[in-house]
Amino acid sequence: MDNLDKLFCVQCGSQSLILKKPDGDTHVRTICQNCNHIMYQNPKIVTGSVCSYKDKILLCKRAIDPQKGLWTLPAGYLEINESIEEGAVREAYEEAFAKIQIVRLLATYSLKHISQIQVIYEAKLLNEDIKAGIESLEVGLFGWDEIPWDQLAFESVRWALRNFKERQNSNTFDVFNNPN
Amino acid sequence: MDNLDKLFCVQCGSQSLILKKPDGDTHVRTICQNCNHIMYQNPKIVTGSVCSYKDKILLCKRAIDPQKGLWTLPAGYLEINESIEEGAVREAYEEAFAKIQIVRLLATYSLKHISQIQVIYEAKLLNEDIKAGIESLEVGLFGWDEIPWDQLAFESVRWALRNFKERQNSNTFDVFNNPN
Repeated sequence: MDNLDKLFCVQCGSQSLILKKPDGDTHVRTICQNCNHIMYQNPKIVTGSVCSYKDKILLCKRAIDPQKGLWTLPAGYLEINESIEEGAVREAYEEAFAKIQIVRLLATYSLKHISQIQVIYEAKLLNEDIKAGIESLEVGLFGWDEIPWDQLAFESVRWALRNFKERQNSNTFDVFNNPN
Repeated sequence: MDNLDKLFCVQCGSQSLILKKPDGDTHVRTICQNCNHIMYQNPKIVTGSVCSYKDKILLCKRAIDPQKGLWTLPAGYLEINESIEEGAVREAYEEAFAKIQIVRLLATYSLKHISQIQVIYEAKLLNEDIKAGIESLEVGLFGWDEIPWDQLAFESVRWALRNFKERQNSNTFDVFNNPN
């Protein structure tokens, strides 16, 4: 947690947070010296999908930072009280008005440096009625050779696309994770 | 977030949090009326494993609440800057001093009512040197018919054990999720 001395305790409002390992814990936590409240930090979950329609794959051009103007898969933060699969379906609709059906899990990626876990599904786009949602400038269906490889928003988009292709070619259902 | 009117803003320390949908957002968030800081809430990730040694499965009797005294798989909250696989390996060591090797992903369960995502691996216990860690009263290796089915700590422990067996019997690598 950045700028710890500028932050306030959620529980008591005092400005006396420190980093300390609580008794019996294995990790350093953010603790309030006034009320002893522990402010746990947790990795976040991104859920999304590689959606295909015939031989084409759905991509969305980002309308928001980070990486505004670059292409990504429909994906985003999992919400409270939502299953991972529901989150992936919701993101496809929010970003591209795409109606999809989850086929199976494709990959889990651990982006340790930003404490983000990505859970990416293989999905079928149910029809071609797509249009840009509020977070997209543009959406489109791309054949493998039409994918804008040099304009992808994130490295993990490239991983997911390659893993999708790899699975198609190998016909196994192994779940991928970070490439070596 | 419970008792919103008793909590303080992390950013400015004022006690004026409300639930409101920010402009351009699809969900209601906890927002500070004083400084407009949005306190996002995110689902938490539990990572763990079904660890086998020959025909036996590692279980841990919980030394802490919830469900103190009942049996569980080695599993716990994923930490910041940790991969999901590393988390599962760490939990096995913390709870049972078990040295394990991840084999492959077994299941993802979405416990929507508590906003918890469980990522459970199939793992091999590398040797029989196990003993109770600080969060366990006792640890043990159980044959299928020796598992204390009526003393399991969580429903999802039962799911994972059954899915593990189901995969052994079917010899597929499909990843399971919540049973219907």
